[in-house]
Amino acid sequence: MIHAYAAHTPGGALEPLDYDPGALPEQAVEVQVEYCGICHSDLSMVNNEWGISQYPLVPGHEVVGVVAAVGAQVTTLQVGQRVGLGWFSHSCMHCEWCMSGEHNLCPTAEQTIVGRYGGFADRVRAHPEWLVPLPETLDPAQAGPLFCGGITVFNPIIQFDIKPTDRVGVVGIGGLGHLALQFLHAWGCDVTAFSTNPDKEGEARALGAAHFVHSRDPHALQKVANSFDFILSTVNADLDWGIYIQALRPKGRLHFVGVVPSAISAFAFPLIAGQKSLSGSPLGSPATIGKMLEFAARHGIAPVTELFAFAQVNEAMAYLSAGKARYRLVLHH
Amino acid sequence: MIHAYAAHTPGGALEPLDYDPGALPEQAVEVQVEYCGICHSDLSMVNNEWGISQYPLVPGHEVVGVVAAVGAQVTTLQVGQRVGLGWFSHSCMHCEWCMSGEHNLCPTAEQTIVGRYGGFADRVRAHPEWLVPLPETLDPAQAGPLFCGGITVFNPIIQFDIKPTDRVGVVGIGGLGHLALQFLHAWGCDVTAFSTNPDKEGEARALGAAHFVHSRDPHALQKVANSFDFILSTVNADLDWGIYIQALRPKGRLHFVGVVPSAISAFAFPLIAGQKSLSGSPLGSPATIGKMLEFAARHGIAPVTELFAFAQVNEAMAYLSAGKARYRLVLHH
Repeated sequence: MIHAYAAHTPGGALEPLDYDPGALPEQAVEVQVEYCGICHSDLSMVNNEWGISQYPLVPGHEVVGVVAAVGAQVTTLQVGQRVGLGWFSHSCMHCEWCMSGEHNLCPTAEQTIVGRYGGFADRVRAHPEWLVPLPETLDPAQAGPLFCGGITVFNPIIQFDIKPTDRVGVVGIGGLGHLALQFLHAWGCDVTAFSTNPDKEGEARALGAAHFVHSRDPHALQKVANSFDFILSTVNADLDWGIYIQALRPKGRLHFVGVVPSAISAFAFPLIAGQKSLSGSPLGSPATIGKMLEFAARHGIAPVTELFAFAQVNEAMAYLSAGKARYRLVLHH
Repeated sequence: MIHAYAAHTPGGALEPLDYDPGALPEQAVEVQVEYCGICHSDLSMVNNEWGISQYPLVPGHEVVGVVAAVGAQVTTLQVGQRVGLGWFSHSCMHCEWCMSGEHNLCPTAEQTIVGRYGGFADRVRAHPEWLVPLPETLDPAQAGPLFCGGITVFNPIIQFDIKPTDRVGVVGIGGLGHLALQFLHAWGCDVTAFSTNPDKEGEARALGAAHFVHSRDPHALQKVANSFDFILSTVNADLDWGIYIQALRPKGRLHFVGVVPSAISAFAFPLIAGQKSLSGSPLGSPATIGKMLEFAARHGIAPVTELFAFAQVNEAMAYLSAGKARYRLVLHH
């Protein structure tokens, strides 16, 4: 039996759930969970905000743990090896995206907490291609959030070929943004943090921002017009995107990794005149996750975490829901 | 004296205007105009639609002609050489964009018909960097529109590294779109034409489209969901862009070269899930214009043109304004 925590109704409290996962399939791996980050999307899934939740719902998709058992056909992972698991737990391995190394774009990729049970548990299963070994120099107690929040902000740096000579901005200094600041600083970029909260300036600078813009101050935003090669928006709130497009230099890109509720609105003229782009991206491939982990280990990049015991999972969820997390919560056994 | 045609008021008829251009500056070139295309933006400028028109306004920025005189310091062009002139007539040559070969992004670039007199004339002046020699195998009577309409649709192919293996769409089969079909077909792509006018199917196929979608048929648009790597919108009308974003494959780009009147509206979720981009771009650099001309000459690409004498300029403008042009109008002396 696997001992998990599950919501039984939309928005319901998490309660212990024991389930029998059955025999381990030949191509699957069972991981003994040591740590599991709590992502804002765990909350969204518990609340069925995206209409795709199935109950009982076991959240948890920022797992760090140790391989406990491998299926008969698994040759790439050994029992005892420390691995991480993120939003995806399987992909088809034969579509054009999987075959091109872009498994995160596989149209039938299995999502760890959608229609299956996630990592708020003592054990969790996944297919080996989505279990990425953790470098020894990364602290397992802190690494969980890299597998969802981390890869979400790291992947666009790779996908859109951000250069160390670029001037970049990060909008929203929270769970995703505080990781983006670290990655982009280590990448060599000139990094600006945009936050509605001027109290975050000190922390943003400590995390790698060379500049800080108080984004509720229209004058401050206008002052940085025509400044950025790349602006990464991590927020899930509607902002005046026109002023961020104006903040881009020619050939600049405003990139979204947070799902903002309303349609993004952009006039054609500034896009055309400045050859500017708007875009989005989801997570990243296993190969890119591996690259990120190596880069994080080399540069000492880690999420700033607050630890909760699994028994306190409901307190932790309430703490996250109240916007108190600075910056990422991790459950431990 | 230069003999030109000018509008004296917004929306006014074009009337003969003789002006004295003064001594030829040391770094300028005077071109004897043989042909000048009429672009929709000539009409917009005559009507002061963008609020930047100055009167008397001499339109004309798709010039083909012969070098009549060169300034004392001009060493790169000779009298008698056939050249073309487009939207830009000068750029600073020292900003980071000029120094990077992206002169079309120069913030102080001089626009041929903004604050100076354009090519609806017997002669026009420009700086040599923006006068691009015409390959001998291109018909000068047809080449004018390449210098504005042509480069507008060719440049994004270069800028965004469109591949011959890509599936591409062109929205709007008019002055710009009919050139885009030809370029993309010669590029080796699988090309789809989107038009509100089903009567254009035959012509679109003759110009290089392998597929035709009647874009007023929502069912036809839904049928091509998840199909395109690149969709180039050449229209200046508001469409339901969500359905075109849906028509993109993962990593696809919806690119605008036509200024649509209302803000483009896009939800974050499909951009994020499919790693999709929206973007725009303006014209192209002199080097890219040269590349385009060579490519057009090699592949027999030319605008489909209707010729008018300069004396008929007002009839030609009215014809364009009425939406009758199929596909590009050219004035000749």
